[in-house]
Amino acid sequence: MRNGISHAIDVVEAPASKIDSVDFDNLVFGNVFTDHMMECDYVDGQWQNPTIKPYGPIQLEPSAKVFHYGQAIFEGMKAFKDDEDQVWLFRPEANIDRFNKSSVRLAIPEFPKEMFLEGLETLLNLDRDWIKKGLGNSLYIRPFVIATEPGVSASPSKSYKFMIICSPAKAYYSGEVRVVFAEKFSRAANGGVGYAKAAGNYGAQFYPTNLAKEEGYQQIIWTDANTHEYLEEAGTMNIFFRVGDKLLTAPISDRILDGVTRKSVIALAEENNIPIEVRRVTVKEIVEAAKKGELKEIFGAGTAATINPIKGFGHMGEKYELPEQAESYAKFFKSKLMDIQYNRAEDKFDWRYLVEKK
Amino acid sequence: MRNGISHAIDVVEAPASKIDSVDFDNLVFGNVFTDHMMECDYVDGQWQNPTIKPYGPIQLEPSAKVFHYGQAIFEGMKAFKDDEDQVWLFRPEANIDRFNKSSVRLAIPEFPKEMFLEGLETLLNLDRDWIKKGLGNSLYIRPFVIATEPGVSASPSKSYKFMIICSPAKAYYSGEVRVVFAEKFSRAANGGVGYAKAAGNYGAQFYPTNLAKEEGYQQIIWTDANTHEYLEEAGTMNIFFRVGDKLLTAPISDRILDGVTRKSVIALAEENNIPIEVRRVTVKEIVEAAKKGELKEIFGAGTAATINPIKGFGHMGEKYELPEQAESYAKFFKSKLMDIQYNRAEDKFDWRYLVEKK
Repeated sequence: MRNGISHAIDVVEAPASKIDSVDFDNLVFGNVFTDHMMECDYVDGQWQNPTIKPYGPIQLEPSAKVFHYGQAIFEGMKAFKDDEDQVWLFRPEANIDRFNKSSVRLAIPEFPKEMFLEGLETLLNLDRDWIKKGLGNSLYIRPFVIATEPGVSASPSKSYKFMIICSPAKAYYSGEVRVVFAEKFSRAANGGVGYAKAAGNYGAQFYPTNLAKEEGYQQIIWTDANTHEYLEEAGTMNIFFRVGDKLLTAPISDRILDGVTRKSVIALAEENNIPIEVRRVTVKEIVEAAKKGELKEIFGAGTAATINPIKGFGHMGEKYELPEQAESYAKFFKSKLMDIQYNRAEDKFDWRYLVEKK
Repeated sequence: MRNGISHAIDVVEAPASKIDSVDFDNLVFGNVFTDHMMECDYVDGQWQNPTIKPYGPIQLEPSAKVFHYGQAIFEGMKAFKDDEDQVWLFRPEANIDRFNKSSVRLAIPEFPKEMFLEGLETLLNLDRDWIKKGLGNSLYIRPFVIATEPGVSASPSKSYKFMIICSPAKAYYSGEVRVVFAEKFSRAANGGVGYAKAAGNYGAQFYPTNLAKEEGYQQIIWTDANTHEYLEEAGTMNIFFRVGDKLLTAPISDRILDGVTRKSVIALAEENNIPIEVRRVTVKEIVEAAKKGELKEIFGAGTAATINPIKGFGHMGEKYELPEQAESYAKFFKSKLMDIQYNRAEDKFDWRYLVEKK
């Protein structure tokens, strides 16, 4: 409870913890969940009192609208533990604001910010032991809302379920990542839902990504759907290009997610006098820079991976490899971000948020 | 069972029917479901034996991929009862083929066609009493697949649930329908999933449709996302324009659903020597035709509504009303289609499919 507002959260503790059954050294991303979850239903035109209870299955009518019309949005956040056992969130209000922006676009009622944070903090306090110390360890937090009204008429649901589930995460290492620039498929339309974390945006990428994998790429960098001439984002990450010593990234739009890690990288670049241009980036200039040896790095920025260096890319059947960088921007930003996230450096931007022990 | 292949459908009959509690004269579309449903799980790389059992809730992990990544597709079909109590489907194989096309695009394993039809027929035979005689009465059939694998990594699910649920429907009457031509929002991108019945395509339309409703329109006719100059489809219906005595409709593409009712209308137009052009239709030509009094009708074509006449449209703040037509194409096609669906006319195209009593 902050600001004196209490939301009467109903807490039901798990009778026993399953934490001892978890192998924290060999976590697979997003596969294991903590002992508790937060749940809050929207009925009769308002969000009811939230409940925190043992993690477990939910029951829905087969006609629930989420199954038929994809009326669902989510967020990705992380909690970190410092060497003094303090638990920190990273820019949580940015995630909550975006959560509600996504909700508006999907015709889902916004969730009260205070109730979100208060519930999340209560949940994190209950599951504190699941957050492990040490650089790279974190708790991945997944808030989401689904449309629960039974009935198959194609109209907004009258009832919803808000949930937060949490999954312990290790240092994210996905092996060497190579990407292909999209030439045929696309992720988002002008005037569409690309800027929202709408569930449907992700399922739609699986098939083209499978095709890319068959050609040896792990991910796709999406281009604009009209011309495929502009590089936009990678679906689960925003994307940065280093040409010479200059950093380039696409501006946000109604097709591109306003990534929290993305805007943190931009702020850190400015603070550290790294030249950065936020503007439309053409496929042509990146391919030409690669050919001339001026393309030094590509990296993705997102909550799950923090900063994900990219080893090479493909375009029009050609494969391009990026050189190893001694002075890598990707490493620099990753280390800067983690120092702030793990309370190892000054927090000039006021990004850290302490989860007070209760 | 047809073609000698039996899929060992496990049938569990409902202990009692709830049919007597249903007011068939006052059905709201898609709100009441029959006594039984079909369910089939995909695990270990294959579809298991299907079950037909009492309609009821399903249980899923909160991390099930359908909730987070919208990996879900569906179909809409109808069953009709003729005056001799025979039950008919309308072009079911077209729906099953499209169901599997949608699945492929969403990286969902295709469902065996034989098993789909055999299960559906068994289900319809069990719930035969729910299909009422009389023009306009039908059983709306909703097959769908959802991704059920627990885990929040953004990758295709390894397990799925296929279901068919059924809802008795009355003559679809939605009041007078006026539409607005999309000027800012859009439904689908080139290279996207617009041609699939992907769950996410529908939730994404709710917010713009709410805005349209505030301006007095019930639906949106989506235009191409790049220029908003071409009229595409209405989200739950394909769309036809009658200019003079000529019928116009957009060609299917990766943004436009290959509607079964749409292609039936095209075939009926050709059979009945109604001039029809399947080509890109510009906003400009329709607005000009409306101004000159040459735009005689607009109507939607879809399974739920069959043919849905449109009374007027809005564009750039202007409202246009369509004149009442004595010789309406919409009425002509609706009556032609229903005569075939209810076994009142010869079935030249072999569209009817008899659900044999078992």
